[in-house]
Amino acid sequence: MDSLHVIKIGGKVVADEPLLTEFLDDFSNIDGHKILVHGGGNIASQISDKLGVEVKMNKGRRVTDKDSLDVAAMTYAGLINKNLVAKLQARGCNALGLSGADLNAIKAFKRQDAEIDYGFVGDVDDDSVNVPGLSKLLKMNISPVFCALTHDGHGQLFNTNADTLAAVLAHSLSKNFEVTLTFCFEKQGVLADVEDDRSVIPEIDWELYVELKEDGTIHEGMLPKMENAFKALNKGVRQVEIKHPANLLTKTGTILT
Amino acid sequence: MDSLHVIKIGGKVVADEPLLTEFLDDFSNIDGHKILVHGGGNIASQISDKLGVEVKMNKGRRVTDKDSLDVAAMTYAGLINKNLVAKLQARGCNALGLSGADLNAIKAFKRQDAEIDYGFVGDVDDDSVNVPGLSKLLKMNISPVFCALTHDGHGQLFNTNADTLAAVLAHSLSKNFEVTLTFCFEKQGVLADVEDDRSVIPEIDWELYVELKEDGTIHEGMLPKMENAFKALNKGVRQVEIKHPANLLTKTGTILT
Repeated sequence: MDSLHVIKIGGKVVADEPLLTEFLDDFSNIDGHKILVHGGGNIASQISDKLGVEVKMNKGRRVTDKDSLDVAAMTYAGLINKNLVAKLQARGCNALGLSGADLNAIKAFKRQDAEIDYGFVGDVDDDSVNVPGLSKLLKMNISPVFCALTHDGHGQLFNTNADTLAAVLAHSLSKNFEVTLTFCFEKQGVLADVEDDRSVIPEIDWELYVELKEDGTIHEGMLPKMENAFKALNKGVRQVEIKHPANLLTKTGTILT
Repeated sequence: MDSLHVIKIGGKVVADEPLLTEFLDDFSNIDGHKILVHGGGNIASQISDKLGVEVKMNKGRRVTDKDSLDVAAMTYAGLINKNLVAKLQARGCNALGLSGADLNAIKAFKRQDAEIDYGFVGDVDDDSVNVPGLSKLLKMNISPVFCALTHDGHGQLFNTNADTLAAVLAHSLSKNFEVTLTFCFEKQGVLADVEDDRSVIPEIDWELYVELKEDGTIHEGMLPKMENAFKALNKGVRQVEIKHPANLLTKTGTILT
């Protein structure tokens, strides 16, 4: 099987021009098939502020109303996605910006919750990804660049968590590719001591993860990323990496197995 | 050769929900290959107002500065494009939203003008369109949905006129397809009397066009559209139609030959 890299970056990387430049250079230099998934919540928040779109809350949880969804579409699929695509094309990488609606790439369903109506938030499942369609693009040496928008197949766009989207792409495409899933974030990896950037734990398996979770080493912000990672591994992804975007091509970071 | 329809709609159609619904139903029902090109200047102006982005002028001409370009990327490639794609997917049309940067579909160069710096405005030429790449997508029964953004191949996005973009797509793809180019707009066609919607001129050739231009029947707003149309015909497009979006599947409208 061909190898495939699915790499997720957050909005902080997108907003950091020198770091983004370095990252895009490295991304373009990856041999073989690759998919970029980007967030951008921080940039969307700035645009929301400027537009006077308020963050709606329901029982302490953030809700995506129509206005917030519009801001997400503008920021993620428009401003961020097209600039990333143009920059990758300039580096000889045949990038194609996608939302889940394009080519019916990722279908989602409205989040069901007995307590809270989250609005236009889409959840995905094992059947969400259009594996034949995306596999065909990848075999044409096209590099999809995904923003974290999905659709319901009936004309409605949804906001979907970018980590979750990267994970579902990675495990779904494991049917046709040997997939490495990389979460890039602001730390050097999973840290034994969150205050010490040199305390990267180089490798974590499920057993160690449970230990680290129980003794409180891995704390709140990291937990959903780790859960997504182990779910992806269980579903056929070969390897998951958690690292700083500047280290994309090096071994520095945490490998989950 | 396979037939291909390249159809352009303006922002007024996009903003008119019942008309858009009717148009998208008809577009989805077109047999064979098709490309949608959309504008959205009126919607971008609203977003600019809300964001406090002022329209910059230079010697009476509109200039696209960085902020205006960002609004264009947000509005055209994000908000409008992704909602159109989701709505077409709901109708069983395998839509793929594209800017000129995606797949290097349409390369442009910064507008050169001795008098005025237009900012991030991109002009296109006969070599702008990635004909092999787009032909491959069309043969896969994918329907590209273009917003009017292009790129320079060096990482810079540009704002490009949507009529021009539709025309360059149409004539470039005439190498591989028998292309009909349709400009949809708010009138029923080219009118002999602009006050009378029933005065549609059913067919106009170059000779008649020159006459109508000289006697003032065709006035300012229509001239660039007509120039684009005849240029496209000269460069191999089989037929150009100018009609109301509600008449997409009927013969009502003006045919240019």
